[in-house]
Amino acid sequence: MHTRQVRILGTGKYLPKRLVTDEEMDMRLQTRSGWVRKTTDVAVRHFAGDGETASYMGARAAEAALAAAGLTFADIDCLVCTSGTKEQALPSTASLIQLALGEEMSGVPAFDIDATCISFLTGLDVMSYLVDAGRYRHVLLVSSEIASVGLNWDEKESAGLFGDGAAAAVIGRSQEGEASAILNASMKTYGKGARLSEIRGGGTRLHPREHNAATEKDFLFDMNGQAIFKMASKLLPGFVDDLLIPAGLSMADFKVVIPHQGSAMAMRLLRKKLGITEEQLMYITPNHGNTIAASIPMGLHEAINQGKIGRGDKVLLIGTAAGLSLGGMVLVY
Amino acid sequence: MHTRQVRILGTGKYLPKRLVTDEEMDMRLQTRSGWVRKTTDVAVRHFAGDGETASYMGARAAEAALAAAGLTFADIDCLVCTSGTKEQALPSTASLIQLALGEEMSGVPAFDIDATCISFLTGLDVMSYLVDAGRYRHVLLVSSEIASVGLNWDEKESAGLFGDGAAAAVIGRSQEGEASAILNASMKTYGKGARLSEIRGGGTRLHPREHNAATEKDFLFDMNGQAIFKMASKLLPGFVDDLLIPAGLSMADFKVVIPHQGSAMAMRLLRKKLGITEEQLMYITPNHGNTIAASIPMGLHEAINQGKIGRGDKVLLIGTAAGLSLGGMVLVY
Repeated sequence: MHTRQVRILGTGKYLPKRLVTDEEMDMRLQTRSGWVRKTTDVAVRHFAGDGETASYMGARAAEAALAAAGLTFADIDCLVCTSGTKEQALPSTASLIQLALGEEMSGVPAFDIDATCISFLTGLDVMSYLVDAGRYRHVLLVSSEIASVGLNWDEKESAGLFGDGAAAAVIGRSQEGEASAILNASMKTYGKGARLSEIRGGGTRLHPREHNAATEKDFLFDMNGQAIFKMASKLLPGFVDDLLIPAGLSMADFKVVIPHQGSAMAMRLLRKKLGITEEQLMYITPNHGNTIAASIPMGLHEAINQGKIGRGDKVLLIGTAAGLSLGGMVLVY
Repeated sequence: MHTRQVRILGTGKYLPKRLVTDEEMDMRLQTRSGWVRKTTDVAVRHFAGDGETASYMGARAAEAALAAAGLTFADIDCLVCTSGTKEQALPSTASLIQLALGEEMSGVPAFDIDATCISFLTGLDVMSYLVDAGRYRHVLLVSSEIASVGLNWDEKESAGLFGDGAAAAVIGRSQEGEASAILNASMKTYGKGARLSEIRGGGTRLHPREHNAATEKDFLFDMNGQAIFKMASKLLPGFVDDLLIPAGLSMADFKVVIPHQGSAMAMRLLRKKLGITEEQLMYITPNHGNTIAASIPMGLHEAINQGKIGRGDKVLLIGTAAGLSLGGMVLVY
């Protein structure tokens, strides 16, 4: 167990202007009225419009996080984009966010960490070591995702599930007398599940020039939800035990559990398998959908802003992701 | 300055089977005989063929690095892919490398760090803190790049420059009595240069479905070499001073300087601006080309294998990258 004296100083989020209701999704997917709501439990998701690029949304979420932390960009020593999608193949989305923030000559190091849906969790885990060691005073983590561009409208269940948006957090070292800390964190990856949730095209294996009527599905999100569910069900309980037991904690010790909002089904699995009460679970699926890696920091932002957690409270961040990866973190907010 | 007791335990590389000579490139680019060699100084680059995916090449380089370190995959606690390109849009290339290694149920955490051409340097810098703190005993860093799929054959100078390939390194904590350490490291990003070297398409801003005759160049590498050269020339000397002075070092203290092999022109700039002797400079451009983020670990691998550095020698890793980013690291091998 590796405790780090790191504190979440401020969080922010940005949601695209365009709201897409479950009724609109039923029409688009040609499903009967009420199907999307019943199947996905997503009443409203947001879809990015013109000008709402990942870097634009990320910059707005970053500004909100800086304001919440009482800091300005001049206080930031490192900017990490922790998204599961990229704005463009090259360069890093983080450098485009720096540009979108108008801080293009700041010199602040900017790079991406990608662990798909748990990118924020992994980025927070990794970068906390650099903050704890004093390399960087303040690190700005930004997850910004546009899922809507890559949905397969023939896979109605996953198409109905996703939303776009961005969330950001500023972290710094805890001061003397502050309880805030990362108590423990863990990540596991099982490449056996790499093919269960993927977008095969767009990279070096299948270049965009190969896009045509026969290959178009290779460039869209493809998920075998049942197989992931089965794999995650088996792995999650042991994973969480390994995370909590060294910290001397049990599920009852957490004020709030903030999961990646993979799907309503995944949320039910989590609650049942891990013994999380309804009050503990931070559930933002109905008005956000699954926003890929922005999902966990959005849940964290909502938990803080809705007053569900206060300083000193114990929080569990947890998620499964394409890879297949599991990530978890025990922190004192 | 943050010294980390971290040691490079082993390195490995993989080059695609297919060699592409400068004569072949002259024919393909329809340039006069000798133009490619004269302009790029690349006599031979390698292009990936069928089956030589980024994950395949990365896995082979990783196996070589493990063998050189006298370790097996069972000794690895974390696998980080540090490439500037991705094999596919989702999931991370690291999870695909884990799968390609046949270690798909190992659980070893796998994720990507992307800082374009200096991804390896950034990954080594960041992950060294987790090794130093004892979170992970051994971390496997893998850079695997297929540049050839995204070249713009109308931009003859950049098309002549790039090559494919992979390189890997295993790092661990230095033992008592070992001098190996990372003495200092720095990264700076200037988003002002983000548009000077990019592939605009392939991500969420310009989905592969938008690929057509009018947009095809948006899906290919586009570089304003002159503008990058100008920007890097201004920034590099101060950047290197800030890296070396706190360590009490000057250029003469380094046995070898291992730069990102951006171009022959960039190598000349480095030598001239920073006062690096011909003997010090690790120059692998003529038989590799610019292999994006694999370039620095390949140079490191060659420096070790050619006996140019031994244990206790001081080494400088340095590079500029799309972003625009600068990265540097002072280490004792």
